[in-house]
Formats: sequence, C-alpha cells, structure tokens
Amino acid sequence: MSAADAITAGAEAPTRALESDKAKRIVDAMRASVAARGAAGSTFDHVAREAGVSRGLLHYYFGTKERLLVEVVRRDCDIRIAALAASLQDAHTADDFIDGLVRGLDDLVRGDSALVTLMFELFTLSRRNEEIAGALAELCRQMRGHLAASLQAKQDEGVVRLGAEPDAVAGVLLALADGLALRFLTEPDRDQRPTVGAAVAAARTLIADPA
Amino acid sequence: MSAADAITAGAEAPTRALESDKAKRIVDAMRASVAARGAAGSTFDHVAREAGVSRGLLHYYFGTKERLLVEVVRRDCDIRIAALAASLQDAHTADDFIDGLVRGLDDLVRGDSALVTLMFELFTLSRRNEEIAGALAELCRQMRGHLAASLQAKQDEGVVRLGAEPDAVAGVLLALADGLALRFLTEPDRDQRPTVGAAVAAARTLIADPA
Repeated sequence: MSAADAITAGAEAPTRALESDKAKRIVDAMRASVAARGAAGSTFDHVAREAGVSRGLLHYYFGTKERLLVEVVRRDCDIRIAALAASLQDAHTADDFIDGLVRGLDDLVRGDSALVTLMFELFTLSRRNEEIAGALAELCRQMRGHLAASLQAKQDEGVVRLGAEPDAVAGVLLALADGLALRFLTEPDRDQRPTVGAAVAAARTLIADPA
Repeated sequence: MSAADAITAGAEAPTRALESDKAKRIVDAMRASVAARGAAGSTFDHVAREAGVSRGLLHYYFGTKERLLVEVVRRDCDIRIAALAASLQDAHTADDFIDGLVRGLDDLVRGDSALVTLMFELFTLSRRNEEIAGALAELCRQMRGHLAASLQAKQDEGVVRLGAEPDAVAGVLLALADGLALRFLTEPDRDQRPTVGAAVAAARTLIADPA
C-alpha cells in the first residue's frame, strides 16, 4: 500500500497498519509531544525524530497529524473503557457500581490527566476540523455505548435499577466525570470530597437499588 | 504607564486599562481569531490588524497573548454568570430553578458554543502554562461562588432544599453543564432530550422541594 493510498483509505488504513511496533512508537511519541507542546505545536518532524522513524513512514501510517492525534486518544480511551468495564463487571450492588465509577474518575484525575487534556484538546480542534469532529463523535458514541451496556447488564442481573434509559444515564455519568475531572485538575488544592459526595448522591438517582 | 510596566503589573493593569473602546475591540478581535484559528494560531499581529490598533498598544494593554485570552474568557464568563443569576433570581420553586439551569445549558450549546470551546482551550493551555492555570482556577472559583450564592439565597427564601453544601452542589452542576455541553456540541444530531431528562432527575436530588 502506498502512502497516498494510506492517506485516502480513511479510517480503515491505520487500524491495519497499527499492529507494528513502529506504529506504537509513533503513537507514544505523539502523546508525549502533545503533552509537552500541545497539538498545534507538535509536527510530524518532532514526532518522527522522537519515535526514531522517517517522516515518510509517519505519513504512510497516519496521513495527517489530526488522524495521528485521534489515534492517540482512541487508544487511551480503549484502555480507559476496558479498565472501567472490568471494574464495573464485579459490582454486586448499586453502591459497588457507583464505587467503580468514582474509582474511574479518580484514575482519570490522578493517573491519567494527560488523557483528559488530550480529550479537551481534541474537542477544541474538532470545532475547526471536520475529520476530527467525526472521529470525536464516534469516540463519544463508543464510550457511551460501552457504559450503557454495563448499566443494562447490571440491571438485567438485578444489581441496579436505572432511573432512565441506559444510553441517557451513561451520557450523564460521562459528562459529569469529564466536567469534574476538568475542575479537579484546575483546582488541585481544593478539597474534592464534598463535591464527589454530592455527585454520588445525584448519580444514585440514576443508579438505584433494585425495587 | 509603559508597556513593560503593564506586563509586569500583573492582573491589576488590564482591569484598569480595559475601560477603553480600543481594549474592547482588541478583546473582540481575539475572540474572533481564536474561533477561526485556535489560540495557538492567533498572534498579536493578527489581532492588532483585525482590531485596527498597533501591536504596541496590544502589548501595552495585555502584555502576553495568554493574558489576552484569559481576558476574553473572563468577560464572556461574566456575561454568562450575570444572565444565569438573573434567570435564577426569579425562581419561585425548585422546578423553576432547574428550568433556569437547563436554559443556561441550552444557551451555552446553541448560542454560545464559542465560549465552551474557549473554556476547554484555556484548560488545555493551563496544563502547560502556570499563568493561565492560576487565572482559570480563579475563574472556576468565581463561577462556582456565584452559583453557590444563588443556591444559598433560594434555600434561605425557602424555595429549595439543598442536598449538600452550596459549594459542592454548584461544583456538580457546573461540571455537569460543561460535560453535557461538550457532548451535545460533539454529537449535534443526537436527540439530547433523554439525556437532559436524566440530568434533571439527578440534579433534583441536590435541589429538592423544601421539606
């Protein structure tokens, strides 16, 4: 497959090409570059140098910087989703389920703040770039779909009773998590516990004990 | 006051200088430039040209691009806060209060999506710039403080009963609004009503009818 094909083949091409170790090095280098310089300040030249690959190979795999950025966020989100799903799968009560969500938020704020920054950076870029807008919308749908599936499964098991459709509950929980992550990262010295407590009380309306 | 003084005088200087019509033109030009090019792509040269002022004047008023960006967001947030406070002041019931919040979210998504983008852009920049981080933290505190004051006032009037401390309730409501705004702007074709309905149900736990 030529570089031109890779660029025009759209979303399919990277997925196949990304198995290689070099592609992983490129994604890691882009993540580090965006954290240090921002997306606007990160060029294919930086990333190629830091990944130890040629600029041509970078073009071959990803075509555009925007597509590479989307790939970074997609991989990180996949990891986040898998960790959350594993944690929620073990829930035996509504409280367990809520605890899993709070741990997920905590991981996001303490361990994975680069992902939060990347998500918001992707959002601001999506306002001026249709390719990114489409990819981000798809990412949001997928994350919500996975969480909605976890919620539905736990309702079917009789562990929780949902206060609204799974898709709507998942949409509210993810919005709340992102908004809280932004505020907690912005005011790191503020005591977050009262706010987490209020958020849990609100979420409990949507994830109740079974009747 | 020299340009150098304006730069070193910190947050005090712009506030005083900003009364002028030229300063307003500069802020408006910066807002338009960031919407079109992003913060990273907006330079003092662009903004000076589009505001019809000299680059020197721009430096005199704002010192750095970061400080100008913060000023844009601060002014827009002030307008948003004032509109929300006016809307909430008229609430006679908990439902009225919640309706005011939903209208605020709707304004943010439909009318003022540039502000949402700017807020998130400021957040991503704050991760790499301490001056912006400090200014954004102060903005978040102020917005939360204003909403908490509205909540406290309505509890004192016997209009609502809060499910947690006003500051924590305000923190949850603002986080939810920002997270929902991001998702609604990212997926404009999705039916938002079920998610808004679920969000209102969750918020109702924190803003209940008086006992």
